[in-house]
Amino acid sequence: MQNIIDHVHLSADERRLVILDQRRLPLHREYLVLATADQMYDAVKSLAVRGAPAIGIFAGFAMYVLAQGMPDSRPQFDAAFHKAADYLNSSRPTAVNLNWALQRMKRVVDAAPACAAAQLLPRLKAEAQAILDEDIAMCRAISEHGLALLRDGDGILTHCNAGPIATSRYGTAIGPMILGAQQGRHFRVFADETRPLLQGARLTSWELQNAGIDVTLICDNMASIVMKNGWVQYCFTGCDRVAANGDTANKIGTSGVAILAKHYGIPFYILGPSSTVDLNCPTGADIVIEERDGDEIREKWYAEPMAPEGVKCYNPAFDVTDHALIAGIITEKGICRPPYTESLRALFD
Amino acid sequence: MQNIIDHVHLSADERRLVILDQRRLPLHREYLVLATADQMYDAVKSLAVRGAPAIGIFAGFAMYVLAQGMPDSRPQFDAAFHKAADYLNSSRPTAVNLNWALQRMKRVVDAAPACAAAQLLPRLKAEAQAILDEDIAMCRAISEHGLALLRDGDGILTHCNAGPIATSRYGTAIGPMILGAQQGRHFRVFADETRPLLQGARLTSWELQNAGIDVTLICDNMASIVMKNGWVQYCFTGCDRVAANGDTANKIGTSGVAILAKHYGIPFYILGPSSTVDLNCPTGADIVIEERDGDEIREKWYAEPMAPEGVKCYNPAFDVTDHALIAGIITEKGICRPPYTESLRALFD
Repeated sequence: MQNIIDHVHLSADERRLVILDQRRLPLHREYLVLATADQMYDAVKSLAVRGAPAIGIFAGFAMYVLAQGMPDSRPQFDAAFHKAADYLNSSRPTAVNLNWALQRMKRVVDAAPACAAAQLLPRLKAEAQAILDEDIAMCRAISEHGLALLRDGDGILTHCNAGPIATSRYGTAIGPMILGAQQGRHFRVFADETRPLLQGARLTSWELQNAGIDVTLICDNMASIVMKNGWVQYCFTGCDRVAANGDTANKIGTSGVAILAKHYGIPFYILGPSSTVDLNCPTGADIVIEERDGDEIREKWYAEPMAPEGVKCYNPAFDVTDHALIAGIITEKGICRPPYTESLRALFD
Repeated sequence: MQNIIDHVHLSADERRLVILDQRRLPLHREYLVLATADQMYDAVKSLAVRGAPAIGIFAGFAMYVLAQGMPDSRPQFDAAFHKAADYLNSSRPTAVNLNWALQRMKRVVDAAPACAAAQLLPRLKAEAQAILDEDIAMCRAISEHGLALLRDGDGILTHCNAGPIATSRYGTAIGPMILGAQQGRHFRVFADETRPLLQGARLTSWELQNAGIDVTLICDNMASIVMKNGWVQYCFTGCDRVAANGDTANKIGTSGVAILAKHYGIPFYILGPSSTVDLNCPTGADIVIEERDGDEIREKWYAEPMAPEGVKCYNPAFDVTDHALIAGIITEKGICRPPYTESLRALFD
């Protein structure tokens, strides 16, 4: 394959899918070897593979691996293929990229009804590879647009994880720094640990350390002093959904980072694929915030809970950053500037 | 005794000091019974007792307990008393209240050179009781001034711990709500968990729950969404040091809370004794911030570290909140308003 990525790839005989087990990071770099639909379903459901683009890439190669064990006769092959795709899709029903990638794979089969099953295999592999290649190109373009803003020595603060293992190569929010490091440029990155699930501590700081980038891990409540110290020239974060007016839903705490950045006069940028922009969603007020189990706050500590038994918790997974706090929204097509109602719409013209 | 507090008190025979072991909270309500100077030294050093006023109260009663075992003859008693006080003082050299309380106890001895050692004991007990009574009165006054701001049903966000177990009764930042609850008033408190050492999760939410107050524990990065939801009418935090211009050093993350509060139009108040105001410190820029071990961020997680081995961390223990972000500074003498250079000086006129 032209573009091998480490965290989702085929085995040498192409009969199995090999993935980095993201649940075991950062201390354990362990790989899972998946051959059956059940194993693949479990990998997605248990978050061994996570990050919307990475799940899409996973799904493409997963269907290619599974197709190799399906019956030769077309009606039976087609039934087995659709059944496996629907089964995988049910592993994480809200993951838009999972369904999107599985639909692409199904269309390869459906578009060639006269083709022998064995001859579909190279087409399925090519489609999975295309999903991967397109994601790499998209991350690369986002990274280049972001990198163009940075000067050597700049400090960049990021929140949560929007790095290579959530996508393909580079990632989105930390893509500019990873691409820059490959070009010999030097940046200093501050990674919020991102409570309660610690994606910043476990994943972002690990990815940046691996890339040889100067990274400093901080608790979320230290972003203010780091900015006040003059160490941060830009804030870069990813996004889960961008409304038509630029209001942006992302991991809980992102809006706080944006408010601090505004207070200290630091430009705050959102980075993500244009597919994250939802023109049918007028403003952030239309975005429903997922609320998660309070035990994530109460119980995941040391060897025992670090909060009183039964204490009430509020555990929103995301928040919405007001468009007025955002200096720019960087997609693979370039940087959108305010007023976003116009610049975001222009992405799709 | 007139004013028994639960977390630092004498045993029935007054030969031992009984303290709540704050290291074991919130899951374990365990008491330590201390009879020797070594046991008392260890209790302070290991943070079994913590909170500046609580340490001062502890030191007063500790010297009373120890004095009962000292020689009857005055020169030997005095030497033993000073030696024990100096030893306890070395357990936490930067704790101003520890030294302050020990000096008060020493003065009782030094001021009565003709008095028999046995007759000093009731005077020492009375001085320890006075330190406690004065703290209770001070917390009560701060709580009353803060409570006067609140209306039933208000939501109050607090950061870190400035409650009863750090002081005597009521505490400072959460004193208004505890006093209000005793008067049948109803508030809703949001407690930041306060990474990295979780004083908000372990202590504040426990104290509020015990006091029967509606408390919701949140991660530090959730303060923004809680304010945006309209759930917070006031922010109340304690303080470690207030400069002459009102700039205030307090637990790391306090300045971020103040910036968010300003953004959302929520008044942010500092609560603490007037002894925390340091007129010799012109501005927050003159306050040196303690930086602590990065392992507090990296390693205190689950059963294993939640960050890559050796990743660089920045772990400031405090930050400075700019006076421009503070709506008022509440001491036992009332509420100081801007300009603080004048209102804080007037505290001491």
